[in-house]
Order: sequence, then structure tokens, then C-alpha cells
Amino acid sequence: MTDDPLARWRSSIDNIDAALVALLAERFNVTREVGRWKAAHDVTAVDPDRERRQIERLRLLADEAGLDPDFLERFLRLIIDEVVAHHRGLRGEAFEAGPSPL
Amino acid sequence: MTDDPLARWRSSIDNIDAALVALLAERFNVTREVGRWKAAHDVTAVDPDRERRQIERLRLLADEAGLDPDFLERFLRLIIDEVVAHHRGLRGEAFEAGPSPL
Repeated sequence: MTDDPLARWRSSIDNIDAALVALLAERFNVTREVGRWKAAHDVTAVDPDRERRQIERLRLLADEAGLDPDFLERFLRLIIDEVVAHHRGLRGEAFEAGPSPL
Repeated sequence: MTDDPLARWRSSIDNIDAALVALLAERFNVTREVGRWKAAHDVTAVDPDRERRQIERLRLLADEAGLDPDFLERFLRLIIDEVVAHHRGLRGEAFEAGPSPL
């Protein structure tokens, strides 16, 4: 441990970021399975309810944890956009609107 | 457990998202300390090296975990922008370029 508080906080931030990277990688592992399954079963039904419920639930969790719900929603949107791109790649759907990736 | 694979995967995604929310909240707890400390000590020195090292390190971690490094960098940029906004709020710097928030 160092006497420099900035160095200690940055060490904590580095640890948290490594955990975030691992969790994000695992999340995409799961959504990749979802994408393969949907492509194999020709599941194209859009499920806006799933997305809405997810956003509502995570905004609540964020608020309880002291995290700005609007920031959390921007964060989730970034992930959703990436999952949509993955799913479209699996289906060869470059331009078609896909099902809810959540 | 359900026989519906989609429901099982979505349950995993929900668990991962709850963990992401908790980690993000904790990350902002730490950067809030950094922001207070910097404001109290009038630390304004920009530290672009810190940001560059962080991005390089996390791109490597992402690549090792099978996560697209470009996605990871977009994710990190979203966090950085939020931290910058917090730090400026603490310093009353609405428009001034701030120090590296990482």
C-alpha cells in the first residue's frame, strides 16, 4: 500500500475495471448463445416488453445503489446496440430490425 | 429452472446486469473520493498518461476475455465522460477541461 491516496483509489478503480471487463465478456458469452439459438430456431419475434422490464428493473437497482439511473440506461443502450449487431451478424441481417436482444 | 433455454439465459443476463450495476456504483463511489480529494487539494494537472495506460490495459484484458476491445473502449469512454461531469461539478468547472478522471 502506498501513502498516496490517489494511487490507492486508482488501484481500486483498476480492480473494479478488470471485474467489469470479465462480467461484460461473460454477458456477451450468454447473449451469443441467445443469438445462435434464435438464429437456429428462426425466432424473430420482437420482445419490447423484455427490454422495457429490463430497463425498469436496472434503473431501480441503480437508484438503490446510488448510481444515476440515466447513466445506467445509457450504459445499457451501449450494450444493447452491440448485442443487436452480434445477433444481426449471426442471422445475416445487416439492416433488418432485430428482436429484443435483452 | 425452466426448460426454456431463452428464459435460463435471460436469468443469467439479469444476474450479470445486477452485478454490473453494483460494480459501476462502487466505481463511482471511488471516483467521487478522487474528485473530492482533487478539489480539496486543487489538483488540476491533466494526466493523459493515466488514461492512455488504462485504455491500453483494459483493451488487452478485453481481448484476453474474448470481448471486443473497441466495444470496451466505447464503454470506458461513457464512464470517463460521466466521471468528468462529476469532477467538474465538484470543482464548479462547467466548461473547463478537467484532469484525467481515470
